[in-house]
Amino acid sequence: MRWSDVDPEACSVSRTLEVLGDRWTVLVIREVFNGVRRFAEMREHLGISGSVLSQRLSGLVEQGVLERRAYRDPGDRERHEYRLTPLGKDLRPVLIAMMDFSDKHRPALGGPAVELTHRKCGARVHARLVCDDGHAITTGRELTSRVPAEEAVLTA
Amino acid sequence: MRWSDVDPEACSVSRTLEVLGDRWTVLVIREVFNGVRRFAEMREHLGISGSVLSQRLSGLVEQGVLERRAYRDPGDRERHEYRLTPLGKDLRPVLIAMMDFSDKHRPALGGPAVELTHRKCGARVHARLVCDDGHAITTGRELTSRVPAEEAVLTA
Repeated sequence: MRWSDVDPEACSVSRTLEVLGDRWTVLVIREVFNGVRRFAEMREHLGISGSVLSQRLSGLVEQGVLERRAYRDPGDRERHEYRLTPLGKDLRPVLIAMMDFSDKHRPALGGPAVELTHRKCGARVHARLVCDDGHAITTGRELTSRVPAEEAVLTA
Repeated sequence: MRWSDVDPEACSVSRTLEVLGDRWTVLVIREVFNGVRRFAEMREHLGISGSVLSQRLSGLVEQGVLERRAYRDPGDRERHEYRLTPLGKDLRPVLIAMMDFSDKHRPALGGPAVELTHRKCGARVHARLVCDDGHAITTGRELTSRVPAEEAVLTA
């Protein structure tokens, strides 16, 4: 069976894109990963309108990526902040793969804004392709793409 | 320095989103990874209008993700197909991280449309976080996120 015979709606990439939504949505997720969790902080940092931000946050709560938690600063009314759910945290490899790509191919003039390192050993962390037997995959030739029932070879 | 003090334009995620563009763009890249390279095949498989497809393909060529190659079927006029450039192939971990996410959290009824395996050993392939010293990173607590010059701790 060839990929072109597969219903593209069955595609796993496309189902993740439904969760990721548009560019603002991804940037909101990025903010929360980076510890910016409060509405006012996000709005200011992203330069996004309140209504767009509010809509994206609601969507992310609906999708189960974020959860709202109440907090109250002294003398202030109750407000909410947003935390990643376990499902949301599983988007980390997607975001880190995006960081790796642009750090290689679209580097910022001053170097990367954020560098991720392994807390224990201090080495840089990247999203890599690895098989369940622990082998690192570095080229497409090492991959076989099985469209269930039959095998096709990833040609890219 | 905190993330909220960093110019969000410097963010590596956001520069990759510029390359990825919108949802159609990502789905076009997915088609090419899966060996669907010709305009007519993509249009039919994606159910996308010719003008939208044509615009996305031009954008991907401009961004250096795809290159056009001429081909001619016997008795037919010259046409073009699209191949991933080396830069385009470096988007593979992004797409595979997206597949992993939805296979875990938004599985299709009939199971994944495509299963990637390591050609040599047959084990399933996933995008994983790994440090340059070879340690697998499985939780955010194992990561340190350094905003250059100072260290901040990824709290998510």
